[in-house]
Formats: sequence, C-alpha cells, structure tokens
Amino acid sequence: MRRLGIHSFVWTGGQTQEGLEMALEKTAEHGYRTIEFAYLRPELFDLDRLSAKVRSLDVEIGVTMGLGLQNDVSSTDKDIVARGKQTLADAIKAVRDIGGNKLGGILYSAHTKYGTLPSVDGWKNSVEAIAEAGEIARAAGVDLVLEVVNRFESNLLNTTAQGLKFIADTGSDHVRLHLDTFHMNIEEADPAAAIRLAGDKIGYFHIGESNRGYLGDGVINFDRTFDALVEIDYSRDVVFESFSTAVVDEGLSLVCGIWRDTWTENDPLAAHAKQFIELKYAEAKRRRQTNRTA
Amino acid sequence: MRRLGIHSFVWTGGQTQEGLEMALEKTAEHGYRTIEFAYLRPELFDLDRLSAKVRSLDVEIGVTMGLGLQNDVSSTDKDIVARGKQTLADAIKAVRDIGGNKLGGILYSAHTKYGTLPSVDGWKNSVEAIAEAGEIARAAGVDLVLEVVNRFESNLLNTTAQGLKFIADTGSDHVRLHLDTFHMNIEEADPAAAIRLAGDKIGYFHIGESNRGYLGDGVINFDRTFDALVEIDYSRDVVFESFSTAVVDEGLSLVCGIWRDTWTENDPLAAHAKQFIELKYAEAKRRRQTNRTA
Amino acid sequence: MRRLGIHSFVWTGGQTQEGLEMALEKTAEHGYRTIEFAYLRPELFDLDRLSAKVRSLDVEIGVTMGLGLQNDVSSTDKDIVARGKQTLADAIKAVRDIGGNKLGGILYSAHTKYGTLPSVDGWKNSVEAIAEAGEIARAAGVDLVLEVVNRFESNLLNTTAQGLKFIADTGSDHVRLHLDTFHMNIEEADPAAAIRLAGDKIGYFHIGESNRGYLGDGVINFDRTFDALVEIDYSRDVVFESFSTAVVDEGLSLVCGIWRDTWTENDPLAAHAKQFIELKYAEAKRRRQTNRTA
Amino acid sequence: MRRLGIHSFVWTGGQTQEGLEMALEKTAEHGYRTIEFAYLRPELFDLDRLSAKVRSLDVEIGVTMGLGLQNDVSSTDKDIVARGKQTLADAIKAVRDIGGNKLGGILYSAHTKYGTLPSVDGWKNSVEAIAEAGEIARAAGVDLVLEVVNRFESNLLNTTAQGLKFIADTGSDHVRLHLDTFHMNIEEADPAAAIRLAGDKIGYFHIGESNRGYLGDGVINFDRTFDALVEIDYSRDVVFESFSTAVVDEGLSLVCGIWRDTWTENDPLAAHAKQFIELKYAEAKRRRQTNRTA
Repeated sequence: MRRLGIHSFVWTGGQTQEGLEMALEKTAEHGYRTIEFAYLRPELFDLDRLSAKVRSLDVEIGVTMGLGLQNDVSSTDKDIVARGKQTLADAIKAVRDIGGNKLGGILYSAHTKYGTLPSVDGWKNSVEAIAEAGEIARAAGVDLVLEVVNRFESNLLNTTAQGLKFIADTGSDHVRLHLDTFHMNIEEADPAAAIRLAGDKIGYFHIGESNRGYLGDGVINFDRTFDALVEIDYSRDVVFESFSTAVVDEGLSLVCGIWRDTWTENDPLAAHAKQFIELKYAEAKRRRQTNRTA
Repeated sequence: MRRLGIHSFVWTGGQTQEGLEMALEKTAEHGYRTIEFAYLRPELFDLDRLSAKVRSLDVEIGVTMGLGLQNDVSSTDKDIVARGKQTLADAIKAVRDIGGNKLGGILYSAHTKYGTLPSVDGWKNSVEAIAEAGEIARAAGVDLVLEVVNRFESNLLNTTAQGLKFIADTGSDHVRLHLDTFHMNIEEADPAAAIRLAGDKIGYFHIGESNRGYLGDGVINFDRTFDALVEIDYSRDVVFESFSTAVVDEGLSLVCGIWRDTWTENDPLAAHAKQFIELKYAEAKRRRQTNRTA
Repeated sequence: MRRLGIHSFVWTGGQTQEGLEMALEKTAEHGYRTIEFAYLRPELFDLDRLSAKVRSLDVEIGVTMGLGLQNDVSSTDKDIVARGKQTLADAIKAVRDIGGNKLGGILYSAHTKYGTLPSVDGWKNSVEAIAEAGEIARAAGVDLVLEVVNRFESNLLNTTAQGLKFIADTGSDHVRLHLDTFHMNIEEADPAAAIRLAGDKIGYFHIGESNRGYLGDGVINFDRTFDALVEIDYSRDVVFESFSTAVVDEGLSLVCGIWRDTWTENDPLAAHAKQFIELKYAEAKRRRQTNRTA
Repeated sequence: MRRLGIHSFVWTGGQTQEGLEMALEKTAEHGYRTIEFAYLRPELFDLDRLSAKVRSLDVEIGVTMGLGLQNDVSSTDKDIVARGKQTLADAIKAVRDIGGNKLGGILYSAHTKYGTLPSVDGWKNSVEAIAEAGEIARAAGVDLVLEVVNRFESNLLNTTAQGLKFIADTGSDHVRLHLDTFHMNIEEADPAAAIRLAGDKIGYFHIGESNRGYLGDGVINFDRTFDALVEIDYSRDVVFESFSTAVVDEGLSLVCGIWRDTWTENDPLAAHAKQFIELKYAEAKRRRQTNRTA
C-alpha cells in the first residue's frame, strides 16, 4: 500500500468549493493521505485554491466516474462511442488540471443497470476507446484504472479475469484494474485468488463492506483480502468507500441503490475504517512473516 | 427442512407444456421433491396433465414472481396499486389452480432496479396490499412468502429486519418471509444471525451462491447458513437456485443481470447442488449434536 | 464484558515482588483493568504493598492455576484427592488475601498431558471436591471458574458441554466455566455455538490465538467469538493471554509446550491485543444492531 | 491428488493378520485407494498373504510411526540417537517388505509431550539421522516424509517453515514434508499459506478435523485447504485420519489424547469423509477455473 485514502462522499455529496475544501480538510484531519472525488466538474471550482490546499495538506486526489448510456464506449453506435471518447479525454484533462494522479471507475461502459446483454462489437469499441484514453492519460501523467463492478452496475467487466482480458486486448501497459471488495463479494468465485491473479495489474483498490456500511458490518473476509494484497506486494493506493443516505450525491446514490442509512455520523465511520484497515493490514504482514519464520 | 427443491430455470427458460413437464421429470429424476416455477402463466398450460404428472412424481410446486412498475403495490399511484392487487389475487388463484402450495418472490414491489427512493406512503400501500393478499392466499390454501432481495432488485425490503417489520405491519400471521442466501450476502450484516432473528417467520428458503453459479463457487459461508437453519429448527422448504445464460428466461435474466455462463450443463449442476446441500445440512446437524454432547 | 484484562505472563514469568508490581503497572499503563496471576504463592509477597498498588491503579486481580498429579482431585486415590482439596482451599484463601476476585484454571484435575483415560470415579471425586471448593469460595467472596482445556492439558473437561455437565453435577450455582478460545479451537465442534450454549454459566473468558501468539496470527474466527459473547450479553471479565519463550515461567512454558518465540516484545503485543479486542467487540455490537434495525 | 486413502485406525486398532486384512478390504470397499498403517510390526504378519491382498484390491500401503524417548534421534545422547537410526532403518525395510511406498510420521523426534525445550545439538543429530534415513529410503524405493505436528506431540517440528528448514539442512531431495490439517490448525499462522509455501516439498497430506472426529465437525476451513492444494498442483497422496475411543490402538490413543468418542460407527464416517473430500476438492478446482475464466 502506498497511500490510504477515503472517498469524498463520506464527507460531502455536493460539489461546491466549500464542500471539496471541507472534504480535503476532514481527510487530512483523520490521517488519510489521498481522497477520491467522483464525477468531478472542474469548471465549478477555483482550481488554484484547491491546488494550494492539496499541497498544504499533503493529500493527493484521485477521480472516479462512470459513463452514461448516452456516451457509452461499449455501445455499438458510433456517435455514442465518439461522445464517450470525448468524455474520457475531458475527464483525464480535468484530473490533470486539478492536480490529481488517477482516473478510475466505470470508464469502459455506462454505470447503470443494463437491460441488454453485452456484445462483441461493444467490447471491441470499448477496448479501442480505452486504449486511446490510456495514451492520453499517459501523456497527461494520469493513471487510468478500470473498475470491475458487479452485474447491476455494468454488463461488461464484472470479474477480474474479464478485466485482465480487457486490458490485454487494449495492448496498453498504462491501463490497470481498479478492484473493489464490495463488487468482488458479488462476482468473484474467490476474491483473494482474484487479487493474486491480477497481481501488478491492479492499479487502485477500494475497500468497502458488503452492505456498503461500516467495515466489519458485513460478510467480507478482509483478512484474506489483506493477505492477498501483502502476498502480491501491492504498492499503490487503497481507498475506503462507504455510502449512506446520510450524505448524498443523489445521482450516485440512485445508481448504487443506497436506500437506507448504514451510518449517520461520518467522523466515527472514517476513524474506524482507518483503524480497521491499518490494523488488519499489519496483521496480514505479521501473519505472512510468522508463516515464513522457522 | 421439509422438502428440498430446485428452481425450474435450471431446466428450462421457456414456458411451454413440454418444458414444464420436462422440468418436473428432471426434478424428480435428481431426487428433488419440489420445483419452483417463476412468472407462471397457467392459461398456457393443460393443467390437468400437469397435475397428473405432479402427483405421479410426488413433486410439489411453488411459484415466484415479481411485480412490475405498472402494477407496483408500493407505488403511491392508486391505479397502479389496484392493478398490483389484482395481479396478486390472480397469481394466488393460478398457484391454486396448478396445484401449487406457495407464492413467493417480490410481491410487495416491482422487481427492478429502482431509480427512486422508497416512500412512506408506498410502504403503507404495499403493507395493505399484502395484508389483503394474505387473506386471499389463506383462503386458497396457498402460502404467501415475501422475498427479501438485494438493493438492485427492489428498494423496499432488502434486509430481514425490514421484512419482519413489514409482516408485523400487515398484522397477518399467514404472511412469512422468503429468504435467499444470494441476496443476504449483499445486504445482511450477518446472514446467519438474520436467520436466527427471523426464526419461524421464515416460510421459504433459497440456496444460491454469491455469483449465482455452482454452490461452492463463491464466497457464501453455507456452514453458518445451515447451522442457523438447524438452530431454528427450520421445517419448511429449501430450494436451490442458479442462473446462467445457458438456460434462459430472457426477462428474468435481464432483470437479474445474468451476463455470463456460470455453467453450461444443468445435470451435473443439479446433482452437485443436491449432494452439497444434503451433506452440509447433515454436517450442521452433527455439529450441533457434537457441541451438545458431554 | 465487564473488565478487559491481561495475563501477567505477558509481563513477567518470575514471581517476585518487583515483577508483580511491574506487571500491575504495565497492565494499567496499557489500559487493561484486570490482571491474571498464575500459580500465585502469596507467602512470597508483601500483600499490603500489592493491595495498595492494586487500589491506586484500579486494576483487579484474578488467579489461575492447575493441580498436579500429586494433588489431582480427579484421582481415585483418596490421599491425592484430599491433598487436592487442601490445595484448592489454600488457593481460594490466597486469592482472597491478595485482594483477588476469582480463582480459575484447571482446578478439577491435574494440568498435564495425561497418560491414562479419565474414570467415572475420578469424575465423581472431582465433582465433590469442586462442590466443596465452591462453597469455600462463595464464603470468601471469590468466584470459582473451571477452565475447559484441550486434550493435551487435561483428560477431564475438554468441551463446554462436558463443563456444563460437570457444574450441573456439583449442584453449585457459584461454580462457573472459564472458556478459552485457544482451547476451544482444538476441541469444540463450533466454538461460537458453545459460547451460546453456556450462556450465563460462563464466569471468565480467555482470548488467545490458535498459536498462542499475536491475535490475528492464527486461525481463530474472533468475529464469531465476539458475536456470541454479545449475543449472550456476556458481562464478566475477558482476559488476553499469550505465551512466548521471550517471557518465561518455566513450569507453565513446559506444560503448555511453548517451544518458540511467537513474539519478543511485550509492549506492542499488549497494545495490539487491546486495540484488536476493543475494535472487534465494538464491531460485533454494531453488527448485531445493524442486523436488527429495519 | 494422486490417491485418496484412509488411516487403518478407522478400521482396527489391533495389529493382527485378520485386522489388517479386514482394514484393507474395508478401505477398498469404500473406494479409498491407499491405507496408512501405524507402528507396523511386519514380523507379526504373513507378508505374502498381505501382498497378494494388496495387489488384488489395488490398495497401496503407507506406514507412519513416531520415535520414543529411548530412540529419539533428536536426543543429545549418542546411544539414544544410534538406536533411533536403527529404528528408522528397520522401519524403512519393513515398509519395503510389506510392499509399502512411504514412511511418514514423527521420524525426527519422539512422539510425545516433551518436558524439555528442543536443543541445537538435538536438531543437528536429527538432521543427520534423517539425511541418512533418506538415502536408505531412496535405495529401498520408499518415500520418506516428516510429519509436522503440534507442540504437544513433538517439540522439534511444529510448523511448515521449521520443516522446510529441516529438510533443507538435511541436503536431501528425497525427504519431504508430511502435513496434517489437525496439526496445522494449532500451529500455523495461516495453514493455506503454509501449503503454498511448502509447494512440491509436500510428500504426503493428512486430512483430519480439528477435534479429530467427522470432517465438518470442527473449525478447519477445508475450502482454503483444498484451494491451496489445487494451487500448488499437489500430486501425491491424501489420507483421511480420525481417531475415536470406539476403535482403539491404546498406545496411539494415549499419546494423542483421545479421551472421548467423536464417533462410534466407522462405516458412515469413512463414507462421509470420502464424499466430503472429493466434493470439496472438485469445488476447489472449479473455483480456480471460474476465477480464471474471462
């Protein structure tokens, strides 16, 4: 693990200058060292002010997003795909402008509950679009990571094996996977084995509980998750993600099906998650060391 | 456990007379003793022939379904609710006519990825509709069981605790819960504790893996599931459910997000599931016995 | 949980006045609120000084021990049993004199790897001896708790079910069980179910890892342990226990088979254990709460 | 897995010609394809008759044993070590004579609850003795495998890491490890990781439950065990082991602390174990396949 971060929606749903600055301050105050902004619209913000705050707090920024059906690069409609490519190019530029270091999420399809099966042509269109975006991102000094998500949030990349095939098809060594324990809990036959399978193709990692609430308040076996991250010597960022109706970005809440409060106070949630992740990560390292000590 | 059954979509997606008869035969051949039909349309079938086959094979029938947005009893639109009530009344009659013994599934709302939050008035409408349906079902000699499902398939009842509150609100002692390991894996903080919490309010139980494929091919801790069922002395039906693109009911496949093959051959799948469930159920009973023997 | 404590052998193997005082100070410094002394010999200490320290630090004292083959109350030799009864009476007095509140451990047999099967007469002798000791302990204001241990450390009480039968046979409501996760990991078919089975008959609880080292450095499922303790509303003391060759009481090390270092520094071990137990206990409470919230 | 076998003590404690023949027949009847004899004394048997039966049933033989304190090759007493070397040489010859293909168990120390710490000189003596025995075994066409056991049954090799260091010290490529889930449950920080660590140095594998009873009647996570065996492509024998007072070899029962019945009927035990192991092994293979299929 390089830096431990937190999703901004723990702090704020809205995208105002004040909201983002508060989120950065809360993140730093809790000892997290990177923050994830979603669906960023840089035109709304005073980027110089944000940049200054980011530097003074030593909190890095990552950005995630999902495409819509109207700009879905896995579509078989050329115009829709073209719009998606433009969206990706714009988003990479926005990440760079705000001083971020990665763009992740569902960049390869719409972030929606599909009502249609994925298609071979759609896969090809998406591969081509991501290959192009990868080069743009490389030039911009931005990491491009594809989030493998559950079947209700995309129909294209639901498993790590699919994700690995996809990035192999792009031919890019700049595109990596963005894995997430919440999604893996629904889709992977063995999440820990999937992490070991992906190895250094993992570019970003989300820690989220099975019910998207407090860590420990669900069924995910985080010991095995951290064992696998230790085993592959994972050396990129890990970000905690949790959604509740208590803090709302309405769009994301609806697409993610956040119908109930899994928490109402974000400070204890964030404090707990940091303690939980650091404790368990250290335990996994110790476990590996103990296992290998004669 | 009273009878161990299997979902008909393991055998057939289509709803033809031949398909249903084949499904009944396969079910019996594999030693399952109840079958689940979904979205049954009895007007399509020769009910006398089906009845005769059911009796000769000693395979019982249960039926499940979900409402649509156009007949959603959790709507706040009176006409939509009224249509939903009629649908439920018709479905209960259909179950009775085909000789089935239970109606389950998402009877209290639409079976869909909602794009809106649930509402207090919608909850009330749904409670009232289910209370009425409960009385109709009781009169028809049909069990009425409400399936608690994950957030992507309904916005109303995602957890056992919600389900228990809902049936308490109906005031009916005829309405019970229909729990499902696949859904619980996404929503419950502790699935086994949820089973113990629900106790004799569980009227029907689905065994499905976290990726909806082969049992064992996912993350669900079935040992704890069966421990809990043994602990509450569960004495109603248990039904195995698995979906693949190999056998397709297109409508259900799309709403459930079945985008890939978790299996292609249904006979070994069904044989394995029966062996798996019976082995683990027996182990759970033995574990409890051993734990209590001085 | 009433008070969280720690075994003195994390701090010191020797039994000197300085050693015990240091152990008390370390215990308090780390925020533990009770300490366990083993095989206490009060005649070696300045009890007034110890008492004063105990009061000033608000750290309570519990004492554990095991009998030997020469004073084994589960023997069929009357003289040996008589010696054992005297040992128990003396130990209860010692606990009272030092201001302790409980006597636990292997009070019902020798603490040894037996080379013979247990006998019916030995069981009866032990039951009678513990019944008597229970009355002495009650009069002394000392809790009497029987540690259920693995097969290599006694041949009489290896499972909770055996322990419950044993205390039922004594007819005493003052004698309770002293359960320990390390031992349960070897002997119980389902440790969490055993905790629920014992319920309020548990008088003392040891938290130890499967290899007796750092918590998390083994196979024990502590989430289920704490779920069970929360479920029975356990309201007595919980004590962390870990042994290494780094801190040695030679006698206990040999009987417990401590052949290697699972740790060398006790301060980080104790700090981690406290954080681990408190974090997981809180998670178990939250999990139960979440599970029950509609 | 090459062949699935069973320990003869499931069938018979005694070592009579009739007992061994019955055990071979029961083994074959249940579909196991290798049997483990313990503490074999070939001078007691009609070896030609045994050989004929073994060939006709296609059941292979492995032998296990432990040294005693009087012939402990990890002793620092030269005479005792010399006796131990002779015992090993004799045992290898006995295995060869009876047509067996491996000698395993606690060949490197006494099989006892030690009352002393292991010593550096004892380790060296044991390494030297096992190196010699390895050459004798190689010449005899017999595999030599060292069982890593829990702290109460030896003080020398309690973990896989220790075992790997030990066989490295012997310099032999003929000596391998004999791992056992029962022992690993007590000693390893992560049993599955230990299996992956040992890889092709595993020469023999025991499947036993944490309480030495029915598989599933304890705490061992066999899914992870089989995942690890599949991951290392384990291609040697797997043998099921369970002890109860119902079938007794008194010596082994006492050293292993078998004080209670975990079962009384061996036929259902053996039938269950075979079904359990084959089902879970197949599930582990499928899980790996599923995880890797895009």
